Amino acid sequence: MVYGANPVRELIDRKPTSVRALWVDVHRAGRVGSDPVASLVAAARAVGVKVEERERELLDGAAGEGAVHQGVVAWLGPFVYAELDDLLQPAGESSGPPLIVALDGVEDPRNLGAILRSAYLLGARGVIIPEHRAAAVTAVTAKASAGASELLPVVQVGNLVRALEDLREHGLWRVAVHATEGAVPLAEIDATLPLVLVMGAEGTGVRPLVAKHCDFHAVIPMARSAVGSFNVSVAAAIALYEIHRQRTAAQGIPDEA
Amino acid sequence: MVYGANPVRELIDRKPTSVRALWVDVHRAGRVGSDPVASLVAAARAVGVKVEERERELLDGAAGEGAVHQGVVAWLGPFVYAELDDLLQPAGESSGPPLIVALDGVEDPRNLGAILRSAYLLGARGVIIPEHRAAAVTAVTAKASAGASELLPVVQVGNLVRALEDLREHGLWRVAVHATEGAVPLAEIDATLPLVLVMGAEGTGVRPLVAKHCDFHAVIPMARSAVGSFNVSVAAAIALYEIHRQRTAAQGIPDEA
Repeated sequence: MVYGANPVRELIDRKPTSVRALWVDVHRAGRVGSDPVASLVAAARAVGVKVEERERELLDGAAGEGAVHQGVVAWLGPFVYAELDDLLQPAGESSGPPLIVALDGVEDPRNLGAILRSAYLLGARGVIIPEHRAAAVTAVTAKASAGASELLPVVQVGNLVRALEDLREHGLWRVAVHATEGAVPLAEIDATLPLVLVMGAEGTGVRPLVAKHCDFHAVIPMARSAVGSFNVSVAAAIALYEIHRQRTAAQGIPDEA
Repeated sequence: MVYGANPVRELIDRKPTSVRALWVDVHRAGRVGSDPVASLVAAARAVGVKVEERERELLDGAAGEGAVHQGVVAWLGPFVYAELDDLLQPAGESSGPPLIVALDGVEDPRNLGAILRSAYLLGARGVIIPEHRAAAVTAVTAKASAGASELLPVVQVGNLVRALEDLREHGLWRVAVHATEGAVPLAEIDATLPLVLVMGAEGTGVRPLVAKHCDFHAVIPMARSAVGSFNVSVAAAIALYEIHRQRTAAQGIPDEA
């Protein structure tokens, strides 16, 4: 499920087939003029999405406590994964060098969702996850991603190492983020290269076999070290921010926002 | 509750009075030699912390699914908040200019915990939260903070605006992170100044009255904008990373790690 005027609008415009039904606030759906709910209803109907009017309380309950749904909740169909090849096509919308995120066994679906959200916002082309011993894209993931799971290609692979080799052959450099011997501070990685950002699982980090297939090893500098290290979704967001920062500074890529 | 060898060790060494009891894996507590559990037991007993031996299954259950407790779980006493004045004292351990985080109504205790964890790791002196309409430090917060809630001073204030004014009088500059008109990209803020980083609540952001009492307004640049914006704990981590990055680059502050 995805809620909120902007994320739902984006879905209706870009991926209407993924929406099973749209719930809208019954008291706003029929309003004339500039109510975004009414304009969403029109857009949804124009592309054949089923619109259902519901009481506000039902939308509150569906979106969950404290969620700002703005009168619209989109129910999604079964999740459709992308193929690795899809990530290798030049993306029309984004100009800069490719950036792909590969997760070596992230297990918490909320962490996966948070990473999808940050990856989307910071310009990644897609996210690769393993089929086994890792969180898949579930309803919890979709919700934590604030809709990004429907907009960003997610690829499930049987063998992450082989995928990393494939990506290398297509000219991408693999950066593992972990505190390993010889790792350099994140800001010293040349982020203007085509990159695959490799993040490890909660607690255990990047596995040695996966690390062996990475070209660079980067660590997020810390001021204090007693409390283990960053949550994986936080570490991914920081790494994605640093890459976007460097690329914007180096090449003057304009932000969409 | 705090678990894992490093976080628990830090607690025993720095704040033993906060530990109500230490649960240790019964099969490891008595081992001789280099087992970190055995060495923790000795350290805890030396400072008067109650040590209780438990079966591994009980530790698994206490720490929660998938948690890497490494054979040790520390149960904490009631949380003790710090005073605003505590944050204004020069902190012995950290050399750089002060950095304080102020949260304008973060409501999710897991978000609060994640922010405490990042604030600790990236060198903040402490975190200020409002007494009302905001998450307090609970067991959920402590767990999400991975122990940082016990090591980083947290101050609860009745009036956040007054606290921000106090901090200004002590020479700190207030930076609000939000997408407001005139906000500059985060990297353009001079992070070598003494700073208060002001983050808004989930969904609603920094309230106008609070924003009015901030000196700078910064936005985290995005590559795409459809999916609202960053989760508040992710935004805080990115801002803290950027400040630490600038300070390290400008002044060569050595990391503790």
